[in-house]
Amino acid sequence: MMEYKLLSNIKGPDDVKKLSQAELKELAAEVREALFNRTTKIGGHFGPNFGAVELTIALHYVFDSPKDQFVFDVAHQTYTHKMLTGRAIAYTDDAHFGDICGFTNPKESEHDMFYIGHTSTSVSLATGLAKGRDVTGKKGNVVAIIGDGSLSGGEALEGIDYAGEMDTNLIIIVNDNEQSIAENHGGLYKNLEQLRKSGGACEINLFKAMGLDYKYVEEGNDIEALIKAFSQVKDIDHPIVVHVHTQKGKGYPLAEKNKEEWHYAIPFNRETGEKVSYGNGESYQDIFGKYMLDKIGNNDKVVCVTAAVPGAVGLEWDVRSKMGKNYIDVGIAEEQAVAMCSGIAKNGGKPVFVTNATFAQRVYDQMTQDVSLNSSAVTTVLFSSSIYGMGDATHIGISAIGMFANIPGVVYLSPTSREEFLAMLEHSVEQNDHPTIIAVPCDGVNNMIYPVDSNYDKTDKYQVCEEGEKAAIIALGDFFNIGVETAKLVEARMGKKATLINPRFASGVDRELLDRLCEDHDVIVTLEDGILEGGFGQKIASYLGGKNVRVLNYGFIKKFYDGMSAKDALEESRITPDCIAQDIINGIKA
Amino acid sequence: MMEYKLLSNIKGPDDVKKLSQAELKELAAEVREALFNRTTKIGGHFGPNFGAVELTIALHYVFDSPKDQFVFDVAHQTYTHKMLTGRAIAYTDDAHFGDICGFTNPKESEHDMFYIGHTSTSVSLATGLAKGRDVTGKKGNVVAIIGDGSLSGGEALEGIDYAGEMDTNLIIIVNDNEQSIAENHGGLYKNLEQLRKSGGACEINLFKAMGLDYKYVEEGNDIEALIKAFSQVKDIDHPIVVHVHTQKGKGYPLAEKNKEEWHYAIPFNRETGEKVSYGNGESYQDIFGKYMLDKIGNNDKVVCVTAAVPGAVGLEWDVRSKMGKNYIDVGIAEEQAVAMCSGIAKNGGKPVFVTNATFAQRVYDQMTQDVSLNSSAVTTVLFSSSIYGMGDATHIGISAIGMFANIPGVVYLSPTSREEFLAMLEHSVEQNDHPTIIAVPCDGVNNMIYPVDSNYDKTDKYQVCEEGEKAAIIALGDFFNIGVETAKLVEARMGKKATLINPRFASGVDRELLDRLCEDHDVIVTLEDGILEGGFGQKIASYLGGKNVRVLNYGFIKKFYDGMSAKDALEESRITPDCIAQDIINGIKA
Repeated sequence: MMEYKLLSNIKGPDDVKKLSQAELKELAAEVREALFNRTTKIGGHFGPNFGAVELTIALHYVFDSPKDQFVFDVAHQTYTHKMLTGRAIAYTDDAHFGDICGFTNPKESEHDMFYIGHTSTSVSLATGLAKGRDVTGKKGNVVAIIGDGSLSGGEALEGIDYAGEMDTNLIIIVNDNEQSIAENHGGLYKNLEQLRKSGGACEINLFKAMGLDYKYVEEGNDIEALIKAFSQVKDIDHPIVVHVHTQKGKGYPLAEKNKEEWHYAIPFNRETGEKVSYGNGESYQDIFGKYMLDKIGNNDKVVCVTAAVPGAVGLEWDVRSKMGKNYIDVGIAEEQAVAMCSGIAKNGGKPVFVTNATFAQRVYDQMTQDVSLNSSAVTTVLFSSSIYGMGDATHIGISAIGMFANIPGVVYLSPTSREEFLAMLEHSVEQNDHPTIIAVPCDGVNNMIYPVDSNYDKTDKYQVCEEGEKAAIIALGDFFNIGVETAKLVEARMGKKATLINPRFASGVDRELLDRLCEDHDVIVTLEDGILEGGFGQKIASYLGGKNVRVLNYGFIKKFYDGMSAKDALEESRITPDCIAQDIINGIKA
Repeated sequence: MMEYKLLSNIKGPDDVKKLSQAELKELAAEVREALFNRTTKIGGHFGPNFGAVELTIALHYVFDSPKDQFVFDVAHQTYTHKMLTGRAIAYTDDAHFGDICGFTNPKESEHDMFYIGHTSTSVSLATGLAKGRDVTGKKGNVVAIIGDGSLSGGEALEGIDYAGEMDTNLIIIVNDNEQSIAENHGGLYKNLEQLRKSGGACEINLFKAMGLDYKYVEEGNDIEALIKAFSQVKDIDHPIVVHVHTQKGKGYPLAEKNKEEWHYAIPFNRETGEKVSYGNGESYQDIFGKYMLDKIGNNDKVVCVTAAVPGAVGLEWDVRSKMGKNYIDVGIAEEQAVAMCSGIAKNGGKPVFVTNATFAQRVYDQMTQDVSLNSSAVTTVLFSSSIYGMGDATHIGISAIGMFANIPGVVYLSPTSREEFLAMLEHSVEQNDHPTIIAVPCDGVNNMIYPVDSNYDKTDKYQVCEEGEKAAIIALGDFFNIGVETAKLVEARMGKKATLINPRFASGVDRELLDRLCEDHDVIVTLEDGILEGGFGQKIASYLGGKNVRVLNYGFIKKFYDGMSAKDALEESRITPDCIAQDIINGIKA
């Protein structure tokens, strides 16, 4: 077991300041050992943290957190920051891995200004801290730390532009490791390269063009150089960009070489780099990637568009490299992705935008104005729009139905199985009439139980899978299986078969079917993998509000779900076959 | 009556190409006369159109629309474009004013690529047109025309950055009239000034820093110079920015001088510039501006934040200039505004963000992640979140409840009167616990009918205004008056008084009250000024779905409302006291 001679004595930033330059280097080595200890065993953001060790040590050496305030963009590179602010035990002691989350969180420490997990927000938040400091008469530096990958996001560019007209202390550290999650995309990265190559001297300069003062530091993994640079800008009276050139994955040759693979690591063998596999089953990512590759092979009007997260959505290098010009990564720029898709569709192309549901939150306006108001046939595929999977409040996608399915003109499809997902994709890409959202199931790859009705022309037509009596269960998307299990329980307990329905469309209300169900059913149940308020089931309850039938909606209580298991969340909102079956039986008229 | 010698013979762009340089100048003069004819009588976007006459004539002279495709940003500067593409009669003949809308719209003409009304979308849409052109094997130029004011928007900056790595024909014309709606804000405007002053030669160059080729044209109101410049870039094989210096309001001295006042004009006297007043009644804009000014006078922690629309929200120059450093206009940059507010609140400031509901569509993610997840006490005041008022589909704000009231942690308040609006504002600014949205009423300034209950600590506590029997009417925000009228009708027709409720919170469900109402009421009605799906009433229907009570939700059918009067929309969705009263009477058990 490692000793952590210095790290074990770091209780807070003050202890960092006591160390000599030589000791700071030793501290960096210990921090990397602690990073290995955690990431080899439970995984985590690897490259961003290994690259930012020296940067973070220098920040805490020079500035005085929390009086000086740090805002780390995305906050997935803050493992060193956590270690230096009293949380080293969560990296050095396996029993304490669970003490922390993967991002900054004010509930964990006064040194964490915000709970952050999305990219490109740091500069805007920091401009606010600076203004708040000034109007309340506080003192101190405000420091935003933003990676090069995050710079392409609209919020970051708006923030940098606004910062360019402020006349107060604000330090923007651009941590440039020449890489986004995957490769960088956007014209500004040519300028970053020019700046790196010229040692910051190149006349063409994005930051100066936005009105900011500018300083370049080539040795971004050299603590001494960083301390010198940060000392020079500390207490500055105007906004400045400090452009620091770091190496992503620094300290682990495999990660230095293959930056995309090692952006995030699942548990791995340190000697060989071999990953501890999560299992070899087929994933919806695989299914999607394969579909797109085949489709593009047969139709060169099809264009697959991502916003910096290809690896998370089945578009690893070996897949996307085969797509040639029919693959577009716009970088972290979801608004650009969606508006661009509308333009592609307008000229007869077939755009498919794919991302995680949580990041799609950035395009409500674009989906409304640029796409739906223009009836552009854009297909948007959302991964992780579900309680299953990601556990941080910053990344959970259970607001997707409420966000998109209520936009006029948007058809929101929720497949229940592998076959239905493919049928919906195919339909969506082939039609020319309206935007479609497809919420990829997240409860594992299921095969169809009932024949897939692949006619989606009527955008509010549900599929009746089982005709039953008294109770009808309308179970959407990846909660269809909960519906199936509930129906079984109802039959076992009551001896009566319930009607089982796959609604397919989260955006539509099948009035005809509901009217018919009312005639001879006492209870109608809806099930959805999303927050109840603003969601699918409430549309049904509203439509049937004046009818003589009970409607029971099952979905999640409106709140932020943070680090909660899917099982606990389902139980808390009573979304279990047992609870629902009992409610149905209680609701059926004697 | 004006003759329009040339303009009357322009049936399409081909007719423009036939004119000599001298005739083109004459055409520009006639176009301005036609602009006067329309704007003096029915108003419209004045400055942007008077400034872009020559630019638009030169575009149609050089390029071949619709084979060459124009995307006008915001599209409020397209009056000349409309005149040159067969729609001149809508400007020259008063009887045809109603033929067109104020923006580009594909339903009007094949020369209009998109229905657009929000800023900062043109470059992203154009990148898509270019990509769609290329994958479908089409030919032609794609030209985005974007004003300097729109450049600060995140979507525009994402689009310009992405364009910087494209390798195909794409022309971005920056129409720089040195003005947003109000003054420009953001560091990039210093660079535009440097570029103008240096005739485009300044080394620091935002567009080059984003990887784009660049060309400057000083004489932006000189048709000859513009034709020359556009001819040089036509059929270019890579993206280029053509930076054109124009004069906003050109051709009307008053508008050239006072650019903000003449950005949009209500009907006016051409000789004197005097506006035909819309009436002198107090507006909620006045009330809001006065409140903020007083509040800032008493508390220098309060900060009023806008995103480029101060004049629309009661912050005209005489008001905002008195707010000093406690007023911030971030420019067209809503994401920056909201994230900045979160930072201000985090450091103890009291931020109030104010905009129109339709523009707030850009901050769903920021409101969720930057603000609500961080429990930042940001007050957001939304004007025009209503069917009343603005008539274009691009600007209608009836999705605001569905968009914001379902975000966990957001408290959405809907005042019914002047006094309640002020009470809610005061409460929201003073509390430190959560973000608040306040939807300003849009049915005119009403005074309170019932005492205002100014305790908002319990965020789901409705106010019972009248205790009645059998039927309860829960009437939200500016539809409270429809509730009052409905209650009167019910009493007149049935002799029974209905229970009348002001729910106050669009984001909360008063379970206790609803449980009590169920005991002795047969019908519960909800009323809201918004799209029904995802809105307020459906929460009530869902909560009561299992109870033995009828719930009738009144709100708008989910669709885009375009150029429809409020009256027609209300009638179409049966939101009239007469319809609702009849439904109530039918729903009460015999």
